[in-house]
Amino acid sequence: MYSMDDVFNAYERRKAELAVSKGPFAQGLAWIEGQYVPLAEARIPILDQGFLRSDLTYDVPAVWDGRFFRLDDHLDRLAASCEKMRLRMPISREKVRRTLVDMVAKSGIRDAYVELIVTRGLKFIRDYQSYENNLYLIVMPFIWSMPPQVQRSGGSAIVTRTVRRTPPGAMDPTIKNLQWGDFVRGWMEAMDRGSVYSFLPDGDGNITEGGGYNIFCLKAGVLQTPSRGVLQGITRKTVLEIAESKGIATRVDFVPVEDLYHADEIFMATTAGGVMPITELDGRPVGDGQIGTVTRQIWEAYWAAHYDPSLSFKIDYA
Amino acid sequence: MYSMDDVFNAYERRKAELAVSKGPFAQGLAWIEGQYVPLAEARIPILDQGFLRSDLTYDVPAVWDGRFFRLDDHLDRLAASCEKMRLRMPISREKVRRTLVDMVAKSGIRDAYVELIVTRGLKFIRDYQSYENNLYLIVMPFIWSMPPQVQRSGGSAIVTRTVRRTPPGAMDPTIKNLQWGDFVRGWMEAMDRGSVYSFLPDGDGNITEGGGYNIFCLKAGVLQTPSRGVLQGITRKTVLEIAESKGIATRVDFVPVEDLYHADEIFMATTAGGVMPITELDGRPVGDGQIGTVTRQIWEAYWAAHYDPSLSFKIDYA
Repeated sequence: MYSMDDVFNAYERRKAELAVSKGPFAQGLAWIEGQYVPLAEARIPILDQGFLRSDLTYDVPAVWDGRFFRLDDHLDRLAASCEKMRLRMPISREKVRRTLVDMVAKSGIRDAYVELIVTRGLKFIRDYQSYENNLYLIVMPFIWSMPPQVQRSGGSAIVTRTVRRTPPGAMDPTIKNLQWGDFVRGWMEAMDRGSVYSFLPDGDGNITEGGGYNIFCLKAGVLQTPSRGVLQGITRKTVLEIAESKGIATRVDFVPVEDLYHADEIFMATTAGGVMPITELDGRPVGDGQIGTVTRQIWEAYWAAHYDPSLSFKIDYA
Repeated sequence: MYSMDDVFNAYERRKAELAVSKGPFAQGLAWIEGQYVPLAEARIPILDQGFLRSDLTYDVPAVWDGRFFRLDDHLDRLAASCEKMRLRMPISREKVRRTLVDMVAKSGIRDAYVELIVTRGLKFIRDYQSYENNLYLIVMPFIWSMPPQVQRSGGSAIVTRTVRRTPPGAMDPTIKNLQWGDFVRGWMEAMDRGSVYSFLPDGDGNITEGGGYNIFCLKAGVLQTPSRGVLQGITRKTVLEIAESKGIATRVDFVPVEDLYHADEIFMATTAGGVMPITELDGRPVGDGQIGTVTRQIWEAYWAAHYDPSLSFKIDYA
């Protein structure tokens, strides 16, 4: 098991090494139409329907300490999203997999945020017979939805009053999508209210998720997370597996907003940040205002899982 | 007043002239970071949050027969959308206006679809202090949401069963946005059901709009269009003004889905297509299955309005 200190100190050392790297792709690279391009120079056609209609799906796996984590789970989910959106990846899954590994190796980035975006392509959805879907791949240094220094004491969140989550009947959130209007509004409200993270209600008194993360709360020893109106997160899945392995009771169901205010512990879960403790909600401390025991237990197991050969594999940077 | 024949025949002649034009921008051009680029070659940074989060707003004015139509109304609406989204255009309105006119003149396109897109820029919304918003401008040959040959007899539409419109509480539809997940689903369902256009309900028994167009229905002599959960379309506004000027009663209010099935006439309204008659709904004829009298009256007045100097101005192509 690794403590926060162990995990973050080792990460900071690797980050410092990357900072002095002279590699052409050390600050990130993209794969666009079969070509590798430094990320800052990477461009897509303005006519891509992924831009002009947000007609796309995407996924975000990560590389941690030189190991790809749950890549196949992410590729499985992306395939499911494509199926629901009637999108087809223009290259085979095996080639995507090989390309991603090659990109990470070429970049030299040991802790990477990896993004795959499949768009409708250059033609509008109505021209159904004729379009060719586009694929864009990105590898860049790890992004923290909650930075390490904040994770050490826990973040501040609000339940939004000005915006609700888009309902599944309008846009199925199990299709990972970039239609973030509600989330962007949530980020704005959090800033306006002197907080950082926003939790969006579903309009019927239940909580859903925030911009890029699932929500967990612990109440009377039961770890709860919303079942509906949310992304089926891979980090969420990992958290539930860890809880099960440790004998922590879980409940995946509707989670009333009210429950959050009586929670003993709250955390968020996402690939870009892992298990992110929330110690303040709507300006009041969550539980005793400290990172809870269960949160810390899951936090440590989560990062340890990144070295589990059944969940991750090593990248050959040579 | 101009009949459909007048309008479409003149348009086809101009289109034929454009087709043989040797101008470098005759198939469209874009303004990207201050540069003019042929549209097919125009690219934007993959890191633009307009792509990575659909964090943007946009607007679509048009040029018809060499005249810009209601450009200031579109610029007003875009400014209002930017305000609500906390976006700021990187150049002045006057410069945007001048650039658009210059682009149309340089392209030589007499009937143009014009798009302005304002994005968050390269930084995520959370980095609120530091981002610079981006602006992209596009001019291309006119796009028909309903092609002329279909307008002559009227199109086929469905009320969607598999998808509802995103509610205003999740994403305010008066902010013109490209988060088209619900509309894309609607287009798919229409195709699946052997139809073309989809009308999305609001989840509470009322109709809203479709992918890029407002909906009107005439019942017992009253022209109705939804008040809530829809874009405040400029074409919608023009239609309402025309109706008023002709003494046709209008009602802007909740419009129950049920009313559509008992409508005497139905049409859609959008800049990219104008007044578009719907003569079949869910496989059944609307009224007597022919384009209605009121629809035709408004159709003709709508295209005539494009020559009204209080609503449009001439572009100098010389």
